[in-house]
Amino acid sequence: MHFFSDNATPICPELLAAIAAADQADHGYDGDAWSARLDGAFSALFDTDVKALWIATGTAANSIALACLCPPYGGILCHEEAHIVVDECGAPGFFTHGATLMPLPGAGAKLTPDMVCERLTAIRPDVHQVPAHAISITNATEYGLVYAPDEVAALGDIARSHGLGFHMDGARFANAVAHLGCAPADLTWRAGVDALSFGCVKNGGMVGEALLFFGGQAQARAAQAQRWRKRSGHLFSKGRYLAAQILAMIEGGLWLRNAQAANAAAQALAQGAGDRLLHPVQANELFVRLHADEAAQLRAQGFDFYDWGEGAARLVTNWSQDAASVAPLAAALAALDHG
Amino acid sequence: MHFFSDNATPICPELLAAIAAADQADHGYDGDAWSARLDGAFSALFDTDVKALWIATGTAANSIALACLCPPYGGILCHEEAHIVVDECGAPGFFTHGATLMPLPGAGAKLTPDMVCERLTAIRPDVHQVPAHAISITNATEYGLVYAPDEVAALGDIARSHGLGFHMDGARFANAVAHLGCAPADLTWRAGVDALSFGCVKNGGMVGEALLFFGGQAQARAAQAQRWRKRSGHLFSKGRYLAAQILAMIEGGLWLRNAQAANAAAQALAQGAGDRLLHPVQANELFVRLHADEAAQLRAQGFDFYDWGEGAARLVTNWSQDAASVAPLAAALAALDHG
Amino acid sequence: MHFFSDNATPICPELLAAIAAADQADHGYDGDAWSARLDGAFSALFDTDVKALWIATGTAANSIALACLCPPYGGILCHEEAHIVVDECGAPGFFTHGATLMPLPGAGAKLTPDMVCERLTAIRPDVHQVPAHAISITNATEYGLVYAPDEVAALGDIARSHGLGFHMDGARFANAVAHLGCAPADLTWRAGVDALSFGCVKNGGMVGEALLFFGGQAQARAAQAQRWRKRSGHLFSKGRYLAAQILAMIEGGLWLRNAQAANAAAQALAQGAGDRLLHPVQANELFVRLHADEAAQLRAQGFDFYDWGEGAARLVTNWSQDAASVAPLAAALAALDHG
Amino acid sequence: MHFFSDNATPICPELLAAIAAADQADHGYDGDAWSARLDGAFSALFDTDVKALWIATGTAANSIALACLCPPYGGILCHEEAHIVVDECGAPGFFTHGATLMPLPGAGAKLTPDMVCERLTAIRPDVHQVPAHAISITNATEYGLVYAPDEVAALGDIARSHGLGFHMDGARFANAVAHLGCAPADLTWRAGVDALSFGCVKNGGMVGEALLFFGGQAQARAAQAQRWRKRSGHLFSKGRYLAAQILAMIEGGLWLRNAQAANAAAQALAQGAGDRLLHPVQANELFVRLHADEAAQLRAQGFDFYDWGEGAARLVTNWSQDAASVAPLAAALAALDHG
Repeated sequence: MHFFSDNATPICPELLAAIAAADQADHGYDGDAWSARLDGAFSALFDTDVKALWIATGTAANSIALACLCPPYGGILCHEEAHIVVDECGAPGFFTHGATLMPLPGAGAKLTPDMVCERLTAIRPDVHQVPAHAISITNATEYGLVYAPDEVAALGDIARSHGLGFHMDGARFANAVAHLGCAPADLTWRAGVDALSFGCVKNGGMVGEALLFFGGQAQARAAQAQRWRKRSGHLFSKGRYLAAQILAMIEGGLWLRNAQAANAAAQALAQGAGDRLLHPVQANELFVRLHADEAAQLRAQGFDFYDWGEGAARLVTNWSQDAASVAPLAAALAALDHG
Repeated sequence: MHFFSDNATPICPELLAAIAAADQADHGYDGDAWSARLDGAFSALFDTDVKALWIATGTAANSIALACLCPPYGGILCHEEAHIVVDECGAPGFFTHGATLMPLPGAGAKLTPDMVCERLTAIRPDVHQVPAHAISITNATEYGLVYAPDEVAALGDIARSHGLGFHMDGARFANAVAHLGCAPADLTWRAGVDALSFGCVKNGGMVGEALLFFGGQAQARAAQAQRWRKRSGHLFSKGRYLAAQILAMIEGGLWLRNAQAANAAAQALAQGAGDRLLHPVQANELFVRLHADEAAQLRAQGFDFYDWGEGAARLVTNWSQDAASVAPLAAALAALDHG
Repeated sequence: MHFFSDNATPICPELLAAIAAADQADHGYDGDAWSARLDGAFSALFDTDVKALWIATGTAANSIALACLCPPYGGILCHEEAHIVVDECGAPGFFTHGATLMPLPGAGAKLTPDMVCERLTAIRPDVHQVPAHAISITNATEYGLVYAPDEVAALGDIARSHGLGFHMDGARFANAVAHLGCAPADLTWRAGVDALSFGCVKNGGMVGEALLFFGGQAQARAAQAQRWRKRSGHLFSKGRYLAAQILAMIEGGLWLRNAQAANAAAQALAQGAGDRLLHPVQANELFVRLHADEAAQLRAQGFDFYDWGEGAARLVTNWSQDAASVAPLAAALAALDHG
Repeated sequence: MHFFSDNATPICPELLAAIAAADQADHGYDGDAWSARLDGAFSALFDTDVKALWIATGTAANSIALACLCPPYGGILCHEEAHIVVDECGAPGFFTHGATLMPLPGAGAKLTPDMVCERLTAIRPDVHQVPAHAISITNATEYGLVYAPDEVAALGDIARSHGLGFHMDGARFANAVAHLGCAPADLTWRAGVDALSFGCVKNGGMVGEALLFFGGQAQARAAQAQRWRKRSGHLFSKGRYLAAQILAMIEGGLWLRNAQAANAAAQALAQGAGDRLLHPVQANELFVRLHADEAAQLRAQGFDFYDWGEGAARLVTNWSQDAASVAPLAAALAALDHG
């Protein structure tokens, strides 16, 4: 059983069906009937006017969002372990034409308002220093922690008062909402978020995330994002297959059910892992203390996962699992505990 | 019946089947079993060592190829109606960080050796002028014309003697080969081509083209292209679905059969169009003289297509058609002829 | 006697004196007393509120201006022989992060309103094509022709009605004004110009041009330009020496006297050249028909200049000359005429 | 008396004289007689073949050097307080097209081999992470400390063994050499340095630093740097005035004498400052503990300088001073000490 990554998982059947259903002639690019429904579907989900674009990957969605929020000479406050910092080979620098990522520390890959304010204060307001223009957070974070609405809002307040754009990398946004049980709106625009990379692929899609813009500048930013999308080779000629997947994900609530399943599987594993946990488990990722020989034992039992430095491992659950299906690993972890 | 674009066509069934067959857990990005087979499959097809990457779109494949062949301060000789000039919203400028497209005229969107040499001669070899670093041609061209191997080789010779990289935009490479009946190798590396954007989407795919590198620098350029692919957000987390489509296209010869069908359909229409043709028909595109009222007549009969300026139209055939299936439009065109 | 270029000429004595006068301790960058006077001095000269920055070179001033007027995905309408197209090694592409120069033909390197309108009309308003965002003209042009105020205004009207920025490369702006005898304002902001590269170096300076912004967006654009200036390594640590030169040039009318002298020299040569002239002589450049052996005769008499393709030559006069001082070359040209 | 910055100081008389001596007609850009002597002069000074370019500012010299050593998808190891990180408004990101600065901590703004190795080890060699391509150090550092030849060589060894380029920001290189009394070669190419920004402006120049390339790739990198220089608007049309200043600085040893004077002044102040010093004084900068009221006392006595955060100040000496001339401030500092 694989716990490598939610990327390693197959497509969920409803999305394969949606692809098949979209398999008919229509206009190219985003001129098709499916793409045309995105704004409406996301506006319904978020209870406000949303401008939505399909974008192939999370890296591209993040980078295009940042390019709309930050000029080339600006900076983006973010966590030092954020995906945009450590796992995108400099994509934000490419799309923003050289804007500066301003990495900050923080437990569980979460930014705190204090840390952000302190960094903002340290920037001299002269032409020699890079001025901050945006804040970017990941929810759920790279360590599987979830920002609650009030935590997001605290950062959103800072963003607003300093005239900064506010971006959320939501590669696992669904897992965050599933954990919180809140309205998507509460975690985003009501908390000051301007742009959201809404993840689908880790949650059961084949290809295609959604980039969402909220608020008064949504239309202008989306228009700009459409230029970036084309200019970066991301305007697929058969965009309807991406739009169809995204619609299948959100129109009937599949996005949330899939995330709930993955989260439940993670909770089951967390029970088994006990005090091995390096971080609280809130979404679908677990980071556990695990000696090399313990890891070998688990692998010998057919459980695959990545090491996370020395003496630790990362376990990622996914939409196709639930508490029952991961019970064998939970038991194996618990058995190690007493070994 | 649609003649808008080969982009408007559904996916061909073999590729949908290949997607379904690839729908199993595997490593993310290009670490999967399908991606691993690309080099071998293309090396077999091109009868030489090829380095191959899947890339979502033709725009991205073209731009990444050019970024590997031309520095930011260099120039790229190309036709003034090339896709990279008129239909990519500046993507080559984005990926190359500001390299200069050097557009040239030429009948049927084809470059001639004379034109290329004349332009090269006009560049002063000082630091003030942009030096040419690459030639890019499209085969089949944007007007459906095909460069034969000796025509490509004549440009390849210029490229070699001037130290220029040589790129071919092969969005409709299959149609060119189908028209010529030559070996793919003859039209590419044997004629001096360094990099080929090998089109699949217009030929029946859902998403995913192949970017191929030939020759002694293939490995180094492909390594660089992998960086650009990641950095531009084009390294899909579930790349196996792209690789599987491409393999299904090329391993059994589907790519050529599909193109042959589309070309045959185009020939049938060409018969019907007679002296309305603005360009010889060699691949799967027709450009025809057509008054507005004639266009209206055809549309009233259920044929859809794009106008091409005043008094002209573009008709594009595709893999799902053949001479028989387009006979009604051929007849309608011929009927207009005598109208 | 040198007629290579106005770049080849020494510094005019008033500017050397100004450098010496500024040679005292002051704050670095543009925090000094001289830099602080630029806005005021140019506002007086142009009879409106002007924001002014010193910039080392015309290439940098042009590129920074364009970066303030055009986004990376936009296009800039300009003449195909403009300095920004043929003599800046792609600098505009560098500063604008890949914006597209859209070169147009036109006699004497002048754009005509018709040509500009025709090109604008040909751009499809979809996301695939690069949208025009700016017009850039050179006054006096690269062939020494001068746009009169009404000619500039005709282009300015187009710019305004299409929402385009309007830039003037004024490397030889002084020569244009000297020819026209008009107010600087008439040739710039009153005619719709948003940004002017105001040349000083060809007119007697050592290093330093002025980049001027006019109109309602002047302040915002100048703030942006200050960022680009720093980010491109153009914020000199001892900026006072640039500012002092520029002030010495404009505060007492030296800029105009120098240009008048150069223009007068050019007129004297034009008399001598007679029907050899390839273009009307309006500023300080002459383009003359000249066979290789005729060129050799002149050089043997001590006159140096550049060939301009086969059978032609370019002669550039400068601030240190006048009709009398160039009389020997005028005579030599006239003598050839009858040779 | 000013201790703001070595930027605030006038030009030293020898350089003003050199400007005047160069004030004659010659070819434009770097085609003049002075520019032609740079390679030779620096080759003599560094006892090896050197390729040298004049560049207006240190920011531009640093950025162009880095653009020659690091691709857009690469990273540059440097100190978190390096000028390229904190004082260039993202210029390195602009010139390198988005390469990633990788800031490291370290006392006195010095990198240590251990720190560099640790960071290198932490980079996964996959396509998702930015690979290091260069190391950049500042000598003397931003805190006035000097890397000795063996310290540079230890970093140079790491660079060589990891295939990294090695850049030295030598805005105050002269002060470092003056402190060490070593050969310039020992501190640079013999210690593995590939590119040096050789500062002149802080050492008495008006405008113009030198960018030097050493070693087997020097020629190729210098050719590339010439393209960047032009493309970034840094190829002055009257480059002879920059070259003349640089030659006047180095051909007769002025660069070293000026630095020795500034260093001697700093040592005199260091004596006065006693245990107020926050860093050892090795070059021409002092960082001293100083309460607000103490700072006010000094300013009341006519000494100007910048605060350096709360309770501290920075004092910079320059070429025009020496131990005797700064004795009043030294005494004033000592008096405070006992106050």
